[in-house]
Amino acid sequence: MKLLRYGPAGQEKPGLMDGEGQIRDLSAHIADITPAALGREALARLAALDVASLPVVEGMPRIGVPVSGVRQFIAIGLNYADHAKESGMPIPAEPVMFTKAVSCLSGPNDPVMLPKGSVKTDWEVELGVVIGETARYVDEASAMDHVAGFVLINDVSEREYQMERGGTWDKGKGCETFGPVGPWLATRDEIVDHDALAMWLDVNGRRMQAGSTSTMIFKVPELVSYVSRFMTLLPGDLITTGTPPGVGLGQKPEPVYLKAGDVMSLGISGLGEQRQEVVAWG
Amino acid sequence: MKLLRYGPAGQEKPGLMDGEGQIRDLSAHIADITPAALGREALARLAALDVASLPVVEGMPRIGVPVSGVRQFIAIGLNYADHAKESGMPIPAEPVMFTKAVSCLSGPNDPVMLPKGSVKTDWEVELGVVIGETARYVDEASAMDHVAGFVLINDVSEREYQMERGGTWDKGKGCETFGPVGPWLATRDEIVDHDALAMWLDVNGRRMQAGSTSTMIFKVPELVSYVSRFMTLLPGDLITTGTPPGVGLGQKPEPVYLKAGDVMSLGISGLGEQRQEVVAWG
Repeated sequence: MKLLRYGPAGQEKPGLMDGEGQIRDLSAHIADITPAALGREALARLAALDVASLPVVEGMPRIGVPVSGVRQFIAIGLNYADHAKESGMPIPAEPVMFTKAVSCLSGPNDPVMLPKGSVKTDWEVELGVVIGETARYVDEASAMDHVAGFVLINDVSEREYQMERGGTWDKGKGCETFGPVGPWLATRDEIVDHDALAMWLDVNGRRMQAGSTSTMIFKVPELVSYVSRFMTLLPGDLITTGTPPGVGLGQKPEPVYLKAGDVMSLGISGLGEQRQEVVAWG
Repeated sequence: MKLLRYGPAGQEKPGLMDGEGQIRDLSAHIADITPAALGREALARLAALDVASLPVVEGMPRIGVPVSGVRQFIAIGLNYADHAKESGMPIPAEPVMFTKAVSCLSGPNDPVMLPKGSVKTDWEVELGVVIGETARYVDEASAMDHVAGFVLINDVSEREYQMERGGTWDKGKGCETFGPVGPWLATRDEIVDHDALAMWLDVNGRRMQAGSTSTMIFKVPELVSYVSRFMTLLPGDLITTGTPPGVGLGQKPEPVYLKAGDVMSLGISGLGEQRQEVVAWG
């Protein structure tokens, strides 16, 4: 299934994307796509519905974050060897973990706001993993049993805040609107091989990132297992798994950052596309 | 007011601590102490209640985290000059921000579990700030208008995970049970001067930390203002503001870390006391 939430921010309704690319309303069957809706049994109940019987949603509604009430938004850094190189960082010996504030979550096509005074806002197309069942100290072999599915994420980043303001990366990762997620959550069965997904990101129509999840250093089961040793992962939690080369920071002869009026568009095979206009804060 | 939540984990009821140190039940007036209950108007409604008319809770119930549904748990590092020195770190030029996973939150007297294989689990008594109203780009002068009150926090930390595992501190700060909060949330009016609160922490009855919030490098209004420039703070969010000297990492001639069977007790003037037994994971 491709689960999504559509409607004005804060008033989203649950839906799914059918095989023809139409949104079908799930309101008669579930109040919202919450963390509790992502467990194995809850997903099985939705999967048993007759899609053709669900009302088609007319028009082009806004799309929201595909899960409401996300509690934890974990990110993995430098997880593509070529991206580590373009960032001037060594290839990590174990996953680099940091946190994106949940208050940065936004719909896949909502505007991205430049923080006040920001001069180094950058893009990162990433494969996001959505936790379905609580995970603590899970091994790699069983890690995927705790995953509900996958989402497309733009891990928007302010490089000055991230790397020049002391201590940790979190400062540059959680600014409001820095977490576009969606358009849909593809359940695990939708994605034949999460380790071979093409991914891309354009700025103003120019291809900046083009890669594949096949070049990730630490793979999804290893990441879920690893993170679950340092914290308890809850249903609905997101792990965004790193970005391939081509971010603004890595451009030659010098970095290129976002400015108001720029448009980012990005996608991952099977996970849909996003489009964000960059706007000044306010 | 001193607001609290009492009862078994996951079934806490709302209450308050009266002037005689008795818990009074608030269930007839509010379903739970949620983020939405911490706004100015919601707190004013509770403050208008006749405390003597509220039922006294008999016995010694377990105490939970004083706010349910906390969404963001931000921490400030190295915010006491002497603690920075004992950690072998320079005094920061601006606040060091990191994140504690919300899944680490636990009641003030719940056991603290050593992570599997952990050998460097440590203690940190801290003043916690509870956000009452959404804060984005707030200036120092108005920062306290966004604060509902204060709590006692033990910022339990695994030093190997924090400092020897690459990249960011978050790995060593969010392990399950690493966030004891409470016993109560003291609303702002309860705390005459949050910048002059005595604080202490004992391990097995031996005084390890003794300090005062008066020696914080960056003060509470500055911290709220600072954090609100990097992320949007939501009602119920916690900012734990750093620890005075005396953590295990700073002991001479060599660091001292927690082992199963140890007991931590800690307190801050006006914010009550906590007591945690340290147990092996499981």
